[in-house]
Amino acid sequence: MQTHEIKVLATIKTDFREKFGIPRQSGLVDSLRARIVFEPEFRNPDALRGMEGFSHLWLIWQFSRAVRSDWSPTVRPPRLGGNARLGVFATRSPFRPNSIGLSCVRLEEVCEDAALGPVLVVSGADLLDGTPIYDIKPYLPYADCHPEAVSGFAADAPEKRLNVEIPEALAARIPAEKRAALLDVLSLDPRPSYHSDPTRIYGMCFADYEVRFTVAGNVLTVLELHDNP
Amino acid sequence: MQTHEIKVLATIKTDFREKFGIPRQSGLVDSLRARIVFEPEFRNPDALRGMEGFSHLWLIWQFSRAVRSDWSPTVRPPRLGGNARLGVFATRSPFRPNSIGLSCVRLEEVCEDAALGPVLVVSGADLLDGTPIYDIKPYLPYADCHPEAVSGFAADAPEKRLNVEIPEALAARIPAEKRAALLDVLSLDPRPSYHSDPTRIYGMCFADYEVRFTVAGNVLTVLELHDNP
Repeated sequence: MQTHEIKVLATIKTDFREKFGIPRQSGLVDSLRARIVFEPEFRNPDALRGMEGFSHLWLIWQFSRAVRSDWSPTVRPPRLGGNARLGVFATRSPFRPNSIGLSCVRLEEVCEDAALGPVLVVSGADLLDGTPIYDIKPYLPYADCHPEAVSGFAADAPEKRLNVEIPEALAARIPAEKRAALLDVLSLDPRPSYHSDPTRIYGMCFADYEVRFTVAGNVLTVLELHDNP
Repeated sequence: MQTHEIKVLATIKTDFREKFGIPRQSGLVDSLRARIVFEPEFRNPDALRGMEGFSHLWLIWQFSRAVRSDWSPTVRPPRLGGNARLGVFATRSPFRPNSIGLSCVRLEEVCEDAALGPVLVVSGADLLDGTPIYDIKPYLPYADCHPEAVSGFAADAPEKRLNVEIPEALAARIPAEKRAALLDVLSLDPRPSYHSDPTRIYGMCFADYEVRFTVAGNVLTVLELHDNP
């Protein structure tokens, strides 16, 4: 089997330290902010010249928690309730022969950090904190935007969003700039799609917190908020 | 520097044996047909189960003629006449730290070849014949389609198309199923953008032919058609 060597150019810093709760595609939660920090060899502001003219970027990256030495030709997409098996190339599953991810994010800012060099601030990223980035490309609508495209089982964004209820005292503990993102992430229903036990308590890590919640019907209720060690 | 190993899953068979003439993004020439043939280890029809429900696919691949051991932070995009320098991450240039390409193609057919196993027939590919493919993913409009995206210097598809004139006797020698694609490729003006000598004769390889042509003003004239050895 032929293999190629690929370099890690950067890593992304996000509020997701665990897979549980990460939106299942990019762009579903615009309020999420993340920072792309280049590896020392690639900290060159010239490489970003002209980037501020683009509103959206593609990230090509590694599903770092899904790397396996073997591969399965079929997977069970969560959107199908985890029951039906589809071919891996007909899904965006992380469990692929090459663990390569593709995400479209919005470019918020190109800034210069005294210690880290040029940093890209992006929104809408569905990546785990620390994910290695292989490439960054501008989004070109004339080549990348296909509103006429038909997409089998995953035709639309998940429509049903949960109503999120959180006691005011807990909400007040979350920094303002993180609050909307956390509530949006929760509204997407982080539970595996085959779960429906209203008494079960789930724990999700987000930024510096562990959030504990239940889901009954269309309502997600935040019960507790713990500082994440 | 951290590196990862990536597998070649498939190669694509296209009518472009040379870089000259390849459209500069995917989807510009819908009439182009190509075939994706999996490597023996990945010839499993189960891996494509459900794919026929999708009209468009992403290909993640290697710019195999652009692999370099070093990298340049800036490039000169042909769309800017080859004069202005932009950061490599603000362009889709092949000359990137990792030589990774991203193309959206239309899925025409999933077929089974007695010798090669499952084969994907796609259209609109802007890839050199024999290009190694790293991943194939379904296009999901709700995550991938951003008509509102702003794109700096490359806002629109190249608008100006050339009128292609070809003597009937030459056109008749091109098989019907390749003719439209060849004329469309020529209409995109394969010349480097800073060329404008109406007497210069260009040669472009396409499928089994070498096509020789001139360009004067808005008219491309095919002069000769040679069988490619």
